[in-house]
Amino acid sequence: MLKVGLLGAGRIAGVHATAISGHLGSTLVAVSDINTTAAEKIAGQYGAEVRDTAAILADSSIDAVLIATSTDTHSDLIERATAAGKAVLCEKPVDLSLARALACQKAVAATGRPVMIGFNRRFDPNFSALKEAVDAGEIGKAELLSITSFDPAPPPVAYIKVSGGLFRDMMIHDFDMANFIMGAAPVTVTAVGSSIVDPAIGEAGDVDAAVVTLTYADGRIAVIKNSRRAVYGYDQRVELLGSEGLLQAHNMLENTVVKSTTQGVTGAKPTYFFLERYMPAYAAEWAAFVDAVTGHKIVPVTLADGVAALAMAEAATLSVKTGAPVSLASLTG
Amino acid sequence: MLKVGLLGAGRIAGVHATAISGHLGSTLVAVSDINTTAAEKIAGQYGAEVRDTAAILADSSIDAVLIATSTDTHSDLIERATAAGKAVLCEKPVDLSLARALACQKAVAATGRPVMIGFNRRFDPNFSALKEAVDAGEIGKAELLSITSFDPAPPPVAYIKVSGGLFRDMMIHDFDMANFIMGAAPVTVTAVGSSIVDPAIGEAGDVDAAVVTLTYADGRIAVIKNSRRAVYGYDQRVELLGSEGLLQAHNMLENTVVKSTTQGVTGAKPTYFFLERYMPAYAAEWAAFVDAVTGHKIVPVTLADGVAALAMAEAATLSVKTGAPVSLASLTG
Amino acid sequence: MLKVGLLGAGRIAGVHATAISGHLGSTLVAVSDINTTAAEKIAGQYGAEVRDTAAILADSSIDAVLIATSTDTHSDLIERATAAGKAVLCEKPVDLSLARALACQKAVAATGRPVMIGFNRRFDPNFSALKEAVDAGEIGKAELLSITSFDPAPPPVAYIKVSGGLFRDMMIHDFDMANFIMGAAPVTVTAVGSSIVDPAIGEAGDVDAAVVTLTYADGRIAVIKNSRRAVYGYDQRVELLGSEGLLQAHNMLENTVVKSTTQGVTGAKPTYFFLERYMPAYAAEWAAFVDAVTGHKIVPVTLADGVAALAMAEAATLSVKTGAPVSLASLTG
Amino acid sequence: MLKVGLLGAGRIAGVHATAISGHLGSTLVAVSDINTTAAEKIAGQYGAEVRDTAAILADSSIDAVLIATSTDTHSDLIERATAAGKAVLCEKPVDLSLARALACQKAVAATGRPVMIGFNRRFDPNFSALKEAVDAGEIGKAELLSITSFDPAPPPVAYIKVSGGLFRDMMIHDFDMANFIMGAAPVTVTAVGSSIVDPAIGEAGDVDAAVVTLTYADGRIAVIKNSRRAVYGYDQRVELLGSEGLLQAHNMLENTVVKSTTQGVTGAKPTYFFLERYMPAYAAEWAAFVDAVTGHKIVPVTLADGVAALAMAEAATLSVKTGAPVSLASLTG
Repeated sequence: MLKVGLLGAGRIAGVHATAISGHLGSTLVAVSDINTTAAEKIAGQYGAEVRDTAAILADSSIDAVLIATSTDTHSDLIERATAAGKAVLCEKPVDLSLARALACQKAVAATGRPVMIGFNRRFDPNFSALKEAVDAGEIGKAELLSITSFDPAPPPVAYIKVSGGLFRDMMIHDFDMANFIMGAAPVTVTAVGSSIVDPAIGEAGDVDAAVVTLTYADGRIAVIKNSRRAVYGYDQRVELLGSEGLLQAHNMLENTVVKSTTQGVTGAKPTYFFLERYMPAYAAEWAAFVDAVTGHKIVPVTLADGVAALAMAEAATLSVKTGAPVSLASLTG
Repeated sequence: MLKVGLLGAGRIAGVHATAISGHLGSTLVAVSDINTTAAEKIAGQYGAEVRDTAAILADSSIDAVLIATSTDTHSDLIERATAAGKAVLCEKPVDLSLARALACQKAVAATGRPVMIGFNRRFDPNFSALKEAVDAGEIGKAELLSITSFDPAPPPVAYIKVSGGLFRDMMIHDFDMANFIMGAAPVTVTAVGSSIVDPAIGEAGDVDAAVVTLTYADGRIAVIKNSRRAVYGYDQRVELLGSEGLLQAHNMLENTVVKSTTQGVTGAKPTYFFLERYMPAYAAEWAAFVDAVTGHKIVPVTLADGVAALAMAEAATLSVKTGAPVSLASLTG
Repeated sequence: MLKVGLLGAGRIAGVHATAISGHLGSTLVAVSDINTTAAEKIAGQYGAEVRDTAAILADSSIDAVLIATSTDTHSDLIERATAAGKAVLCEKPVDLSLARALACQKAVAATGRPVMIGFNRRFDPNFSALKEAVDAGEIGKAELLSITSFDPAPPPVAYIKVSGGLFRDMMIHDFDMANFIMGAAPVTVTAVGSSIVDPAIGEAGDVDAAVVTLTYADGRIAVIKNSRRAVYGYDQRVELLGSEGLLQAHNMLENTVVKSTTQGVTGAKPTYFFLERYMPAYAAEWAAFVDAVTGHKIVPVTLADGVAALAMAEAATLSVKTGAPVSLASLTG
Repeated sequence: MLKVGLLGAGRIAGVHATAISGHLGSTLVAVSDINTTAAEKIAGQYGAEVRDTAAILADSSIDAVLIATSTDTHSDLIERATAAGKAVLCEKPVDLSLARALACQKAVAATGRPVMIGFNRRFDPNFSALKEAVDAGEIGKAELLSITSFDPAPPPVAYIKVSGGLFRDMMIHDFDMANFIMGAAPVTVTAVGSSIVDPAIGEAGDVDAAVVTLTYADGRIAVIKNSRRAVYGYDQRVELLGSEGLLQAHNMLENTVVKSTTQGVTGAKPTYFFLERYMPAYAAEWAAFVDAVTGHKIVPVTLADGVAALAMAEAATLSVKTGAPVSLASLTG
């Protein structure tokens, strides 16, 4: 039985608490948050204690921590937790600064502790089925990848300002998805973007719609499309052209009812947002973490994966400013 | 907090135990089964006790029982449980004998206790969305209902022999679905059926494929198709033609991945069987029961609903033998 | 080059004229109709002459006639044309009277001339692809057939009165489709029907919605659903469950555009009616006729096929009145 | 009745000859081709004469010419035909050289004759329905356009060498589609491409897979994906995200049959290539040309449209070499 401490008690922490408690091989022992009311609520719901972070890290009976705090604390907490001997599952991104993330990666390596980054979409049953089909050679050699990833509505501008920007905050999931599907990092990153959804986002220095193309050493190409607004719901699709076919992972829908009238043939919308779409993925992600940690296997999404996605986000941020492709090697040395 | 006793510890009892424990307003207190190993397993998993049925019914601190025993015990247990003051959720069918079910209904009425019958499909998010659309008038006046309901594979012949036959065992769900959607009982039931899937089923005196047409007093028509075998998975669809359009509830699929190759465009199969398809429905069913019982409201699927579906099954069984339509009134007096 | 006379100049005759002229192996020579204006219009468009029917039949240079006159003239014209040595393609139904159709079949047999009945749906690319898949064994042994066939809107009541009723006028296409797919005639025909779309149709003695079940000697079952009204367009679907899978032929849509908004995900409606849906089928039907006649092969839809479908329509008409199954053998001796 | 001369007698010329002859307002008078056998075949089929190009242009009774010769002759023939007073429908592209096309545009302007460029996809019923929905404001303000355009198989390398490259030969259709949907030319063109389908294409100096992003003055973005190989058929899709929804035009399929087995749920492939997919578009294109010319209206796809698409192809060709975005204004002055 893996004993787990949860750092953070916000919305996504609640999702993780459910997964931790729902797993037969793990139990939630303690929760910490500067918002003690929030921590108490989660702790109460799952029979855990509220403690401060230092106490959790100091408790040698706790095997693992799940870091679901604000992004600016991730690197520090990963370092502290691994130094304290914990296995770690940390929400994405590792950090907003690539340099800081690289330093964190180095520090963690010295501890030898497993750190998994919470790229939950790898565990979505649709994307994982697509990945399995690719790996099984069902469409031959992969050639051209397309990722569509639209949020239903933009977050508040106040959030945008501290988010690190669309590439680090939102497209980072898609960078990791590209790495997951393609099994390699790209050579160049070329981005275009604009603030077309909400001028206030542009005034805050960010874009709200963007297209990024990635090129690979072997000639493969990937393209990622992001928008902060798709009024019909969370639009999360992956499409891969190969030498022997095409694989597509379509959206999940709210239900399967279709209505035909004089107005046309109408079906349900995609599930509204990430909680609706990815709830099964969060449970599968946690199960994979428990599996890896208790089985002494390599975690399925490493800290290096987190750093790689962050490097791509940094490259895209740079590219959208300069209008030129950015070599990934130029950033990661 | 509704305290619940579970009668029966087979596969479907396990599903209900999960729903009872997962609901914030109910707790599983005790489990009974002549197979004590099975009862201990469920009790252990959810922190309940193993007791015998009499002890559960005698415990005045237990508010409700869920009956998931074999069909031949349903009527007796419903009567005993309501006489003991319990609220009851009983798996379908009420009984294999319509006369016995009618007697049970009379006995229960005298106790005034709520009895809900486990027609879980009413709580499937797709069928309930279809029902809401009908009731909202989205396709005008209902005219012609079609229900397709195919199992992935036939059960063992040993089971067939004690099942009461396809109409009481399998199509009874679809009879209830027709009653749910149409909001009225039919006037006549006309059935054709044959043993085309497995001759052994025919030798056991049952059919394994059947089509039943229902006519309604106001001219509406319904048709139900059943087969014991659809090798591609559990095929559960409802389609309703109305004066202003058509509503269809399609199958749930295993995932949304589609592969295009020289062989065609291939998507995932329907979810395999009722556990995969209806797991959310079981949770919603239980929530509706808790809601009704704690809120002193009428349960959403009454014992009368269970009797009505059974009467249709009896009518269909008769019709398939005589080749003639059977008036429902001739059976229920 | 097959020289063709067209008997009739109504709407469907125009469709056939286009097919005759568009085929490289046939040419339209003459058109007859009591409405000479209509005949002149078609003749003018395709460079043919207007003649009376007797003149067309007497012209030994004309190889074939296409009969697209009113139903009450079909049997007589088939007999006259074959007696005159013509090959015949006649619109369905052969006749409204089964006895008359049987007599016609006998008379034609004596001439040895080929007569094809215009069950155009056999030539629809979707239904013919489904048939090919069945025959190739792609779903194993056929078990349960469903045909959905809804018109967009009912015809005028004046037409209903002379139509022979829904079974002879509308469902006859579906009876032929069942015969086409199943490759055998059914043993029993059981029909339910009502006038729910338009009371005036009921007052005229007809039904406007009906469900017919067919049973086969080997245990197979078919069910046909008809409605005179589907406001969303012409709904023409076939679905066949077999021992190793399911085949479905879905509707053709007006276009492939799908719109996702806050209101749902909306696609185009089915093509509006038979001209939109079956135009390619009419051309393929004519091509098959030319092929058969010029190649001295058996026509793909024989007069016997026309009689078989008519017998089923008569059985269904009888069944809906008596409420009992009708044995097909009792009608055709 | 528009009298038409056809310049060229290759495969696409045959398609146009069918459209010209099938239109009630136009007639094919003469065909020219250096391959006189090919010219005779088309002329014979549609009752036209074989003449040389000069004779066709000199014949004042001929109102319009359709230019379906090899690309290197387009500009010259457009200039000669308009100088001779003909209305012109010319296959795309105008020329492989942007400078030459600009000169041609200038020469044509002096004649005042209408010249339409054969971007047939604008007349595809799916894309034109999407365009109508955009223009009707059904998804609010357009923001992000995606065009997927894959050929089923690459052409011979010998053709690649004279084709002008993927951007001028293949993606030029998609550049025009972007202009059609967006109603404006982009500001920058950024391309990535590689030779991943067939190394011989790379050796011939071309790419066989490419992604191009377009940015617009108002912040809109478009992305075009091309591949020379999609083994499952011609993949032609358009998708537009707007402020109030998403529009998608999906592929046309060979038929609507779907098969469900233990292997999954399989439907038909997309129609194989442009002849299968766009045959109705060629007829609609010709009808639009006849309409415009006889009604003295502006043709729906002007020579300027042809030049605009060519400029984008030139920009993309440049961008894929330099790896940098190309300003469209820098090319067209």
